[in-house]
Amino acid sequence: MKSMNEQTVFRKLNHVPFTQVTIEDAFWAPRVRAHKQAALKACIEKCEETGRISNFEKAAGLLEGGFQGIYFDDSDVYKVLEGIAYSLMSIPDPELERKADEIIDKIAAAQEKDGYLMAYFTIKERERNAAAKPEPNGDNGGDNNAGNHSGQWPDQKWTDMAMHEMYCAGHLIEAAVAYKQATGKRKLLDVACRLVDHIESLFGPGKRHWVEGHQEIELALIKLYHETGEERYWKLAQWLIEERGHGHGAGYIWDNKDWGPAYCQDDKPVRELTGVSGHAVRAMYYYAAVADVAALTGDQGYLAALDRLWDSVVNRNMYITGGIGPSKHNEGFTEDYDMPNDTAYCETCASIGMVLWNHRMNLLHGDGKYADVVERAMYNGVLAGVSLTGDKFFYVNPLSSDGSHHRVAWFDCSCCPTNIARFIPSIGSYVYAADDQGVNVNLYLAGTGTVAVKEGQVQFRQITHYPWEGSVHITIDPQGVSDFAVRLRYPGWCKCAKLSVNGVPVSEISVEKGYFVLRRQWKAGDAIAIQFDMPVERVYAHPKVKANNGKVALQRGPLVYCLEQTDNPFDLKTFSLPAETRFITEHKPDLLDGVTVIQGIAENGGVQFTAIPYYAWDNREPGGMEVWLRETRNPLSLYTS
Amino acid sequence: MKSMNEQTVFRKLNHVPFTQVTIEDAFWAPRVRAHKQAALKACIEKCEETGRISNFEKAAGLLEGGFQGIYFDDSDVYKVLEGIAYSLMSIPDPELERKADEIIDKIAAAQEKDGYLMAYFTIKERERNAAAKPEPNGDNGGDNNAGNHSGQWPDQKWTDMAMHEMYCAGHLIEAAVAYKQATGKRKLLDVACRLVDHIESLFGPGKRHWVEGHQEIELALIKLYHETGEERYWKLAQWLIEERGHGHGAGYIWDNKDWGPAYCQDDKPVRELTGVSGHAVRAMYYYAAVADVAALTGDQGYLAALDRLWDSVVNRNMYITGGIGPSKHNEGFTEDYDMPNDTAYCETCASIGMVLWNHRMNLLHGDGKYADVVERAMYNGVLAGVSLTGDKFFYVNPLSSDGSHHRVAWFDCSCCPTNIARFIPSIGSYVYAADDQGVNVNLYLAGTGTVAVKEGQVQFRQITHYPWEGSVHITIDPQGVSDFAVRLRYPGWCKCAKLSVNGVPVSEISVEKGYFVLRRQWKAGDAIAIQFDMPVERVYAHPKVKANNGKVALQRGPLVYCLEQTDNPFDLKTFSLPAETRFITEHKPDLLDGVTVIQGIAENGGVQFTAIPYYAWDNREPGGMEVWLRETRNPLSLYTS
Repeated sequence: MKSMNEQTVFRKLNHVPFTQVTIEDAFWAPRVRAHKQAALKACIEKCEETGRISNFEKAAGLLEGGFQGIYFDDSDVYKVLEGIAYSLMSIPDPELERKADEIIDKIAAAQEKDGYLMAYFTIKERERNAAAKPEPNGDNGGDNNAGNHSGQWPDQKWTDMAMHEMYCAGHLIEAAVAYKQATGKRKLLDVACRLVDHIESLFGPGKRHWVEGHQEIELALIKLYHETGEERYWKLAQWLIEERGHGHGAGYIWDNKDWGPAYCQDDKPVRELTGVSGHAVRAMYYYAAVADVAALTGDQGYLAALDRLWDSVVNRNMYITGGIGPSKHNEGFTEDYDMPNDTAYCETCASIGMVLWNHRMNLLHGDGKYADVVERAMYNGVLAGVSLTGDKFFYVNPLSSDGSHHRVAWFDCSCCPTNIARFIPSIGSYVYAADDQGVNVNLYLAGTGTVAVKEGQVQFRQITHYPWEGSVHITIDPQGVSDFAVRLRYPGWCKCAKLSVNGVPVSEISVEKGYFVLRRQWKAGDAIAIQFDMPVERVYAHPKVKANNGKVALQRGPLVYCLEQTDNPFDLKTFSLPAETRFITEHKPDLLDGVTVIQGIAENGGVQFTAIPYYAWDNREPGGMEVWLRETRNPLSLYTS
Repeated sequence: MKSMNEQTVFRKLNHVPFTQVTIEDAFWAPRVRAHKQAALKACIEKCEETGRISNFEKAAGLLEGGFQGIYFDDSDVYKVLEGIAYSLMSIPDPELERKADEIIDKIAAAQEKDGYLMAYFTIKERERNAAAKPEPNGDNGGDNNAGNHSGQWPDQKWTDMAMHEMYCAGHLIEAAVAYKQATGKRKLLDVACRLVDHIESLFGPGKRHWVEGHQEIELALIKLYHETGEERYWKLAQWLIEERGHGHGAGYIWDNKDWGPAYCQDDKPVRELTGVSGHAVRAMYYYAAVADVAALTGDQGYLAALDRLWDSVVNRNMYITGGIGPSKHNEGFTEDYDMPNDTAYCETCASIGMVLWNHRMNLLHGDGKYADVVERAMYNGVLAGVSLTGDKFFYVNPLSSDGSHHRVAWFDCSCCPTNIARFIPSIGSYVYAADDQGVNVNLYLAGTGTVAVKEGQVQFRQITHYPWEGSVHITIDPQGVSDFAVRLRYPGWCKCAKLSVNGVPVSEISVEKGYFVLRRQWKAGDAIAIQFDMPVERVYAHPKVKANNGKVALQRGPLVYCLEQTDNPFDLKTFSLPAETRFITEHKPDLLDGVTVIQGIAENGGVQFTAIPYYAWDNREPGGMEVWLRETRNPLSLYTS
């Protein structure tokens, strides 16, 4: 690693990797435990069962037989390895590490002499001119990448830009960097570097043009640069970004009249992008990489484009859950404000993409509004993607259901489960950020963080019942440094807070870019107490969001709530919530791994409805679910708030 | 006293007198202390300085000289005595009691042989045909009762119904009942009873008609009934109520074309009243008495009229502060939704009247919505009426000031100071109410209450930092009873709460008529914990309130906030509060006897404004004040709450 915290010239903040952060949080602990005990295990087993791992052995010539599954299935194995790496850093597990090493050996064996690595094409090439016809599948709304491209896939390397060759390489790189950081073992990293060398031998300035059909390698190359310090990696990422939007794209995406270049953001050059379009996950991975390159170059065209894109996504195209991409057709965006609830696509991967991009935007600008989006997506859109047991997954995350939408154990296109597998153990990455002058606390979750500032480092310990309660206690232990700023994110959902240091209320507080800024001489044991007011909020959508006209959603803290049929003895579709209904909350430790429920008080006594956090839905009896509720207003009241 | 708790057949709840309640509350303690140390003392001194007490001596023939002041000035002395009585019950003070006894001796001496008692008329009669011309005065907006009736007052007893003869008798009765309860001494009560006998000898069925120009005696007669058990008292009150609206009224109110019968609610019979009209204090005292009589008779016509009146006041004519009566012209109501801020009259007495009436409505119906109004008026409109030092008073309580409106030590028409003098030590009256089956907790303030239920009584101990914090702890000590309901008001300002008993969250909670109802077998030491969410709320007025179009007010818990010039370095009149501005709160123990301030966070960091509770304004440097602030909205945000 180049440094403990990734540093880039044009970033306001440095990334604080999750290796510096421990999670001892009552909310996240069950999720991390379920990830370790169920999600990782399920993903490994499914990768084995479905031939995803044996494909490497076949490519290596260690096994006989044809390619099994979808051409980009390698990426799932890489993502699971990345998840294993993150998990091993927090929770060492020799058995799991041995398993990972075995898989890595198979991957390495599948790499061709020239560095090429993608099991599908290697096997196809070996089969010469006999074209394989694996069965594409679609279920639970997922899988459009492959499913809509029925029939025969190309079987020649580097002939169709839609065939995810660089996408798979990107996930390999991410896994390799993570595994090196977690274990010190560089076998997979060497494989990745050889593959990048191979790619560089073919593509780049003065060589072949290439518009990768599914962005991913770009952000991975930046990680490889931060890991190795080799500038050619980020420059290749920059070249790949610059390739888009000039008519170089070719392959089945471009040939499909329903998709075309906008589907993979190849319709305009990066500096000319004005709003989101196309496939949501592709867009997020792309923007994340654009932010990474902008952090290295300070390119004003990139920065201005990112601002326009962010405004487009967050102010006109983001579901309240942090989900994005309303349409199943393109797994992506349609028009501004088009956000149906029942047919909301909101791919889990797209919400993870929102975290990846917005975290980078926060590092770039040091503005809490980006961390607000990270939090919104994490606690709602992303977390809904996995069952409480950790072994069932949503690909599609609607905000309304008639009761027929359920998590399943696996998908033929299983990008979402494997994205969850790598995301959950990485959440520590989003807690802190820092510059020379101070530390930003971006997420409130119990545990510790060790953060480098100029001339020293600072240890933070957070104690909190967030997101169930709004109080956070942070103790500080500066080591070799005393004069620095602690910047505490004032969460976007929160309208009122109070702060004290060592029991003394903070007066004359400074709020800068969404952070409470406490600058002083810190000493070991200094204690910050924050109280965020966390009432139940009625949230209304912009009137242009037709689906939500006359409707209200309930949110408490960062959590969006929903009504599930099993808790409510009425038809959710016909339910109307009076504007004057008031609430009670109760934390139920035995319900859904422990949730705070919101109950509405009926006008004439008793409970009118029960709402649970959106992330926890579809973990009990099957039934309908609604986030947005029709609201009835009493025209008489003299004062409303 | 008939019983520890006043009981009437048609009331849902019994009154729990403040003698059963101790106040140990950090919010109210400084107010009660200032009352005891300054307000009472100031009122006694002013009553002496201004001849209000020597008028009695003159009437008694103990002193020479003409009547000094305004004809109804006796009432101020009575109200101060009532305040002394309440104060003595909580804080014994032999010196103060001796002072009160002296004053009572003078009052008793002024009573004529036939029972008549009003210094003005007695002195005038003695002066025979020489008409006295005291100088009427008006300042700080008050004093319209007298000030607009310039020139010569009638000097013949019982000739002009506007001359407050029964109004003064009412305040005498209230003082007499209170003083008897506080000290056991019945001298003043005997005086009051003789005066009522005198009144009964002249007025009533088959005798003279009378429409008292300023209601007050009616509710006092009910108190006298509850104290003595003599039914003729409440029946006289009922007769006086029934007299109104039949053209019997006569005197300077009726002769004044700008006032007329509606000014004193004499335009319609009680059962036909559809909405508020006229002088606000008269209306409140009237409705309070109507509620009292309805509690004894169950008269459906009264009950229906009260419902209409309540709807009219609370849904169309009440300022956010609980103040009522926008107009200086009639010290009262104009048209629905007419609520200007800068010229708001909002007499302090009218807010006290809102407490008196709404408390009785709560007893009648056992509905928390009435106690909500009690609380709104108490913590805002009433409390603003007195300085923190306790010795300066507002008569008029605008919601906007250019800096020229200030509390003063006294008024020629000093009804408001003396109403404050009797109100503050009586606040314990509004904390609890009860029926045989259980106890209603109406106000949250630290201290104890001993409340009778069927077959026993229950002691409550509240510990809370209300209204600064939303958590309330109540311990229960049942004596001779165990099976009863505890009904905890769910304050109207609060949108979400949670409850536990002995540390166990309460599930399946029942809310009835604005109360959380906890029915169980209680035992000594049972502990209830309530957490009311107490965020800063942006409050909006009904669009028909033109003065507040496009404006917002800030409220936190029961407290309405305002901006005062001294805290804010900009012109309050041109200030605009962005809809997205967020807040910090800080409790400042050294500011204004300890207040939680709300500060707005400016978009680019730092503090945008500072708001303080409305009740505490005009206690520092003179300057402007605004409750309602212009609000600017950002049309871009996708979600608002």
